[in-house]
Amino acid sequence: MKKSKVEFKTKLPTPKQLGASNLIVYDRFFDQVLPELEPIQTWLKSFPFRIGFDSGEPLKDLNQFPEKIEKILDIVSQMAIKNVQIVSVGGGSLGDFAGFVASILKRGLPLVHIPTTWLSAMDSSHGGKTALNVGGYKNQVGSFYPADRVLLVKPILFLQPEARSSEAYGEAIKMALLTGGTFWSDFSKIKKFDNKTAWKYLPQLIRGKYKIVSQDPFEKKGIRHLLNLGHTFGHVWEASQNLAHGIAVAYGIRAALEFSKDMKILSPADYARLNAAPAVGLLPSHAALCALVAITHNPEQYLLRDKKISKRKTLRFIFIKRAGQCPIADVTIENLIHFYSKLKIGENK
Amino acid sequence: MKKSKVEFKTKLPTPKQLGASNLIVYDRFFDQVLPELEPIQTWLKSFPFRIGFDSGEPLKDLNQFPEKIEKILDIVSQMAIKNVQIVSVGGGSLGDFAGFVASILKRGLPLVHIPTTWLSAMDSSHGGKTALNVGGYKNQVGSFYPADRVLLVKPILFLQPEARSSEAYGEAIKMALLTGGTFWSDFSKIKKFDNKTAWKYLPQLIRGKYKIVSQDPFEKKGIRHLLNLGHTFGHVWEASQNLAHGIAVAYGIRAALEFSKDMKILSPADYARLNAAPAVGLLPSHAALCALVAITHNPEQYLLRDKKISKRKTLRFIFIKRAGQCPIADVTIENLIHFYSKLKIGENK
Repeated sequence: MKKSKVEFKTKLPTPKQLGASNLIVYDRFFDQVLPELEPIQTWLKSFPFRIGFDSGEPLKDLNQFPEKIEKILDIVSQMAIKNVQIVSVGGGSLGDFAGFVASILKRGLPLVHIPTTWLSAMDSSHGGKTALNVGGYKNQVGSFYPADRVLLVKPILFLQPEARSSEAYGEAIKMALLTGGTFWSDFSKIKKFDNKTAWKYLPQLIRGKYKIVSQDPFEKKGIRHLLNLGHTFGHVWEASQNLAHGIAVAYGIRAALEFSKDMKILSPADYARLNAAPAVGLLPSHAALCALVAITHNPEQYLLRDKKISKRKTLRFIFIKRAGQCPIADVTIENLIHFYSKLKIGENK
Repeated sequence: MKKSKVEFKTKLPTPKQLGASNLIVYDRFFDQVLPELEPIQTWLKSFPFRIGFDSGEPLKDLNQFPEKIEKILDIVSQMAIKNVQIVSVGGGSLGDFAGFVASILKRGLPLVHIPTTWLSAMDSSHGGKTALNVGGYKNQVGSFYPADRVLLVKPILFLQPEARSSEAYGEAIKMALLTGGTFWSDFSKIKKFDNKTAWKYLPQLIRGKYKIVSQDPFEKKGIRHLLNLGHTFGHVWEASQNLAHGIAVAYGIRAALEFSKDMKILSPADYARLNAAPAVGLLPSHAALCALVAITHNPEQYLLRDKKISKRKTLRFIFIKRAGQCPIADVTIENLIHFYSKLKIGENK
């Protein structure tokens, strides 16, 4: 798989710095009349060719895709034929959409990601996975198409209200836990996760992701599956409670910690040591997890949607043994449900 | 680019010979009640998972694509999750569709092509180009996704009426002219192009195509553009007169011969030598070309649709200097139109 060039910028890049012939695909969020968005709006207008889309799940709907790509082709046909480059300016769904567009337009165009959310800056912009949904099938259509460049632009990322950085916290602690070592020993001490902290740890978070992706770029060896830490249960609450992805993952990591202790993969001493870390204290508490579980019935139906489920109804679960050591093991749906019901009655504490 | 394994078979392959988990995507043509199709129908029914589509341009329409891929996902969801392999059984449009499906379904599934027409057997099944149309834009959405295996199955290819082999003749002589050498010296002597001749020359035709594709797999260096010999004018008649692709290309090669002589790239002696070859005698004659030109008005509008046209309204034309030597040069639309009008009044003979 092609390697993306990751660049940190403290200023907005000029069109020329991006390339000779850019087509900006951006989140229409930036068209809102808000004073703080004015510098970005001026910057976007400095690109003669651009198209805005509303972000979110409808953008990932294949049924609405032909109409959108036709609009994009209308613009591309006005541009110089060769060297057109797609530049995405947005969060996860926008990047997925723009990445898929770049992968199939004229059989593949150069791609630059400029993520505008912490989640996309640390996670979805890297690793080349693009996906769309069709009918009831989520992320079943897509491509492996890494961006040529990923630009992390401080003035864009810092536009986010501080609340958005907490939404990215689940993926951030996930990566620190997966990596371990000095990254974890630094990260474990943080007492809040705001824009400043997110920016500080961004290089390490990104490096952690590429370390895993590069060992298993096309998801053939199971290594990339490590990135699913916190996602098995997280997806249950994302679907059932409509939680933001990052928040659901944070609950999922708390659940993974508890499940790892319950399955005796995580020793009581290591469990206590992890829980004493300030960074783990920023996760939802055991009590908050029980409260969420108490209002979420029939988790089976959501667990069964897991695309990694096998014919024998087992799932590959990522446990936590200690920071930097997250073993993957097959568990049955019954196992998971049993643990879930213990949480429900607050029994496993 | 991944290399396709090309296999010649004198018998229909069993499902097991193809793979563990096949999804057959086939041309619904084979569902017709015709006695000669019965062996193929029995063979198709030996695959538990299969889906038929009507071939032709509607199959390549992106607007109709989401509905089709949802039907495919309905079947895939009943199959073992891993190792699903797409097996296309059809001609050019079916192979383009199935190839594109394989390239984006679950971010890329293994692909086997079993071409059922001579055109797809010698040309479109090889080289990995897949494409769909959207709105007025032809082949603007697609991927480079070579099949893992291409199976040339004699009993399937010989089902074609002899008239179909003549439709493939344009692409066949194109490849022989591009290759030159002993291939041309053999091929130039053929007096008819029927199923037997097509099967005989198939290995050399395919080798010729891979020789060009392998030097320029992603169409970045201009080498692959050689495969466009005969297509610049051919596309005009395909669009305006609704000629079958191969027939239009045959006229296009006759036009390329005449234009090459007109531009003094092909010497009068070499022109005479080429025209004396029986294989060239199977192309439409100069008189037939003039007759086609006489009924096709305003070729500009079709030439301007050429996707290889530059901003300066020049086209990259593939000339014929001699067999095995086909220089590419920029020509203006005016050049082409001037030559075209001379053909119209029969002046350039």
